Amino acid sequence: MRGRTIAAVGEFGFLEQLFRHLPAAGNTVVGPGHDCAVVQCGDQRFLLTIDALVEGTHFKRHWLSPRQLGHKSFLINASDVAAMGGQPRWCVVAVSAPPAYSVGNLLHLHTGIAQAARASGAGVVGGNLARAAELSITIALLAAAPRRLVTRGGARRGDRIYVTGTVGDAAAGLRLLRGARPRLSVRTRTHLLRRFRAPTPRLQAGALLVESGIASAMIDVSDGLVQDLGHICAASGVGAILRTADVPLSPAYRAARGTDGALALNGGEDYELLCTVPSRNVALLDTHRARLRCPITCIGEITASTDLRVVDARGRAVAVEHGGYDHFGRA
Amino acid sequence: MRGRTIAAVGEFGFLEQLFRHLPAAGNTVVGPGHDCAVVQCGDQRFLLTIDALVEGTHFKRHWLSPRQLGHKSFLINASDVAAMGGQPRWCVVAVSAPPAYSVGNLLHLHTGIAQAARASGAGVVGGNLARAAELSITIALLAAAPRRLVTRGGARRGDRIYVTGTVGDAAAGLRLLRGARPRLSVRTRTHLLRRFRAPTPRLQAGALLVESGIASAMIDVSDGLVQDLGHICAASGVGAILRTADVPLSPAYRAARGTDGALALNGGEDYELLCTVPSRNVALLDTHRARLRCPITCIGEITASTDLRVVDARGRAVAVEHGGYDHFGRA
Repeated sequence: MRGRTIAAVGEFGFLEQLFRHLPAAGNTVVGPGHDCAVVQCGDQRFLLTIDALVEGTHFKRHWLSPRQLGHKSFLINASDVAAMGGQPRWCVVAVSAPPAYSVGNLLHLHTGIAQAARASGAGVVGGNLARAAELSITIALLAAAPRRLVTRGGARRGDRIYVTGTVGDAAAGLRLLRGARPRLSVRTRTHLLRRFRAPTPRLQAGALLVESGIASAMIDVSDGLVQDLGHICAASGVGAILRTADVPLSPAYRAARGTDGALALNGGEDYELLCTVPSRNVALLDTHRARLRCPITCIGEITASTDLRVVDARGRAVAVEHGGYDHFGRA
Repeated sequence: MRGRTIAAVGEFGFLEQLFRHLPAAGNTVVGPGHDCAVVQCGDQRFLLTIDALVEGTHFKRHWLSPRQLGHKSFLINASDVAAMGGQPRWCVVAVSAPPAYSVGNLLHLHTGIAQAARASGAGVVGGNLARAAELSITIALLAAAPRRLVTRGGARRGDRIYVTGTVGDAAAGLRLLRGARPRLSVRTRTHLLRRFRAPTPRLQAGALLVESGIASAMIDVSDGLVQDLGHICAASGVGAILRTADVPLSPAYRAARGTDGALALNGGEDYELLCTVPSRNVALLDTHRARLRCPITCIGEITASTDLRVVDARGRAVAVEHGGYDHFGRA
């Protein structure tokens, strides 16, 4: 495998191999392979995560204004914190930019980051600026950890699978930016584009699902519903049944994509939360619904096998084109 | 200024403007503009910093092996922690790489990061991998803060200026990598190249200079001696006299550059510590010298004016070509 390119093994293939190589760090409650690391210092626990947006890979400059780009750069990190029930506190920002990028744009970019951080209860405390051929924004976010620990690895047979909000909107919005021209109302277009440009990190829902003891495993939907459910299954050593008929779609998604649910299953960047809930906690979840600040929908169950089955309303297997988004592609 | 490019105002010109725009974050003891941010949670303080190495800007691939590159990526962050007297604990790593980059090289890169982290008492707890045209490595490092706080802003008139180790070696090594072909012994070449490829973060010295109360201000020499001293002067609202005759040069530097001290004044990436010491603390510094694990040399004094004067052995002003390294250049 060592002689192969990253493109040949994909991001996740590489990361899986890497995690076996890394020595464990001291005072680390949760190491690599989850949405955030959990570190312990004295009696306090923190979440730490890092994520990047790279021009040409994650965005083109005309897709988002510099302020929207800054906003989104922060939110994708906040979403990782939401997936472990934490509260964002401080972030540091490393921007790489071409020398011809304007100071005004760079200030707007940082303003977007600072505004999104503040809206999530966090602050920008440091940064770095480097020259590069492409624009890229890397943010590391330090967050207060919840008292309970929920990772990708806690799903058990019989747990229900839930997802917040709706999925597929961001991918449908991306299709519009890439040039798709379906006949859509301004309202529909605006909704889909906003879902791609300005995702909402589910911080309140994540914190509640963790602190209340409702969720047994959680991840944010950044790579696609099927792929992210696969990450939970792999980390938990279980399988799952995902019912496509139950996957929550927005009216805008239906207007743009009709009955084609493929983007909802495989499209990334929704930044909703995907979690598993033991059946004994379903009643508790129902009592907390109003406090989540977003809908939550049961879309399947965890099974004892290790395969992930996607089925339609009649229980027939649905062919899933690929396992979701991996920007290095696969062999 | 907003309509100008980053190339026209330089990294520091931009950052200075940016810091005036950023809203302050809560529970932040030290915000942007120093080597690390200092954040407070309960009764505990942490240092947080981020830094990046970008292909084409900071390195070319044939200059360092992937393992050396990983090593250096961590060490430049550890050096920022050393400059505030902290102890590295946890880091997260974001790598961007072209799809044709090999899995073997990427594993070596991460191994270098993990080895350097471990040698500094830290661990890699998370990461991200993205596709990009250029190879780049961004690391955010979380460190235990010392009980005392020393930033760039504490220098006062009459303080002595000290620098650890020797300066200019890394820049002389970089000249060799860029194709300079002076007649040098293998030993000299090896020393200069190692100083560029594998700088030593002065963690022990930094912690001692801070915890003992010796240093009043500190920074690591990453952009060049004159420029980094300028950062201390600007943050402290003071001036300085720097005596070129006292700047510590290695035998290898003298062999490569003769009496030309320009690289020692302006060359970046030495990752030595530059600090100011009130005259009442000089005797205390002398009693601690052996425990610093590196030489430390007095190279000047802080003055009440706000200009930075560089003088030769006879006290004559030395023209400094430019203020150090800014990879965006200046107008």
